[in-house]
Amino acid sequence: MSDAPNGPLPVARDTGDLRRAVAAWRAAGLRVGLVPTMGALHAGHLSLVTLALARADRVVASLFVNPTQFGPAEDFAAYPRAEAEDAAKLAAVGCHLLYAPDAATMYPAGFATTVTVEGVSRGLCGDHRPGHFEGVATVVTKLLLRVLPDVAVFGEKDYQQLQVIRRLVADLDLPVTVVGGPTVREVDGLALSSRNAYLTAEERTIAPALYRVMTECGDALQQGLAAGPVLEAGIRRLVAAGFAEVEYLALRDAETLAPLDARPADRPARLLAAARVGRTRLIDNLPVPAVAGSG
Amino acid sequence: MSDAPNGPLPVARDTGDLRRAVAAWRAAGLRVGLVPTMGALHAGHLSLVTLALARADRVVASLFVNPTQFGPAEDFAAYPRAEAEDAAKLAAVGCHLLYAPDAATMYPAGFATTVTVEGVSRGLCGDHRPGHFEGVATVVTKLLLRVLPDVAVFGEKDYQQLQVIRRLVADLDLPVTVVGGPTVREVDGLALSSRNAYLTAEERTIAPALYRVMTECGDALQQGLAAGPVLEAGIRRLVAAGFAEVEYLALRDAETLAPLDARPADRPARLLAAARVGRTRLIDNLPVPAVAGSG
Repeated sequence: MSDAPNGPLPVARDTGDLRRAVAAWRAAGLRVGLVPTMGALHAGHLSLVTLALARADRVVASLFVNPTQFGPAEDFAAYPRAEAEDAAKLAAVGCHLLYAPDAATMYPAGFATTVTVEGVSRGLCGDHRPGHFEGVATVVTKLLLRVLPDVAVFGEKDYQQLQVIRRLVADLDLPVTVVGGPTVREVDGLALSSRNAYLTAEERTIAPALYRVMTECGDALQQGLAAGPVLEAGIRRLVAAGFAEVEYLALRDAETLAPLDARPADRPARLLAAARVGRTRLIDNLPVPAVAGSG
Repeated sequence: MSDAPNGPLPVARDTGDLRRAVAAWRAAGLRVGLVPTMGALHAGHLSLVTLALARADRVVASLFVNPTQFGPAEDFAAYPRAEAEDAAKLAAVGCHLLYAPDAATMYPAGFATTVTVEGVSRGLCGDHRPGHFEGVATVVTKLLLRVLPDVAVFGEKDYQQLQVIRRLVADLDLPVTVVGGPTVREVDGLALSSRNAYLTAEERTIAPALYRVMTECGDALQQGLAAGPVLEAGIRRLVAAGFAEVEYLALRDAETLAPLDARPADRPARLLAAARVGRTRLIDNLPVPAVAGSG
């Protein structure tokens, strides 16, 4: 292990180094948290580290831009990379170790195993990014098994991903508690995302309409209105605001992600969207709580 | 947990009980071994427990007849079940705990995750039992994660299964050492198998031809002869001996299971077969070592 260029944060690139560090903490009776990331860290990621620190004595952040979760036409090569800055930000919020393996360490020659989660992986981003959630499920399983943390924290910003991870952790009996961290937003409501860096100045003025329109739709759905007309009107408003394409704007069961015709009285629901402004794909999601007594 | 009906072996049916027992051993600094089985235990299974005891201080045997690794036309319902006898046999060889969950514990409502291993899962039994190795890979991942043993022992009798498990353990970074146990045979060479109980008296006289013909083929292949004619002659001899169908008789790379035209000089090879006598499907396999200096 070595110190990060811009800070005192130790960096492990080798799985042996990682496991020795975690084993030393375990031997001292300390609880361990993990925050998996693809780097290009913003305040949303850092809030996940803070959440992990509230639940564990030592926190590992991983940085791995996972090639298997990008489609062939997606932005793997262009995805922002800034490890030195990331390490400094992590150190500043109290993270204890950065685990930053390279692709050959993660997927050695002969690698042949895939973790597939049916149900929650299908529809929404699963339809628009074939293979994406298999890539996510497989790399998250590997990261969880390399670190074997007590708790792992993932952002609610990637809500479908979070539900996929909750499902695979339960199904494979991974001995870890999964915690979802609330989405952090700009003052105009835009959800923080590493991909926001792709936006031109003009696109940046359009982008907050996603959250604004979703909030309006969520308010209407919370009144119990039928989802179809509410969401069709929402899509029209997004296009009118300047979005090039709305991949989906959908009301789903908050756990199973099964489609809903209206907000149910007895189960939590979630509004989810993906839309392109220029060439940049933005996603967001909101809870649509049942109104007590309205059901 | 409760004692087994016919012996002093503790039985855990609940994952919590299992994990508490293993955690207590870990806290005492003991090494833990796991021997996954589908029950109907014979001397082959018990030899795996003995192997595990040589490598661990405490050994868990699991008993779970896994429905997801049986095809719709296969023998799941008829598969022999004899838990009380199994528990007594395990106790007699020094096993410390039997983990015998039911199907609802293994696959609760909503279960949706599958572990798939490409490469070694394809061909051979993978062609004749679609979905079989996905079922095996998924349940073995779950058992390994429920027990988190230091070492897990699997029989070489199910050689392709063993290679699938070696691959998934490496690929998913499961923190366990996989050990293969040699096949145990009857005096006439028939590999021990729980399915041998299906054989009629007449079929039982035919069954040993599988090992005999494979040994002859292995000797010929070890001389460097081309695999095609040797294996075709072997299939004819199996049919002449009374086998109803030979699903495959194949020479493969011992690790990747890639097809081979002849035994290579520089890598270990394996001869594998599956054949039906009456309605019973038998499998077997043998190493075909390179002869030193024979090139």
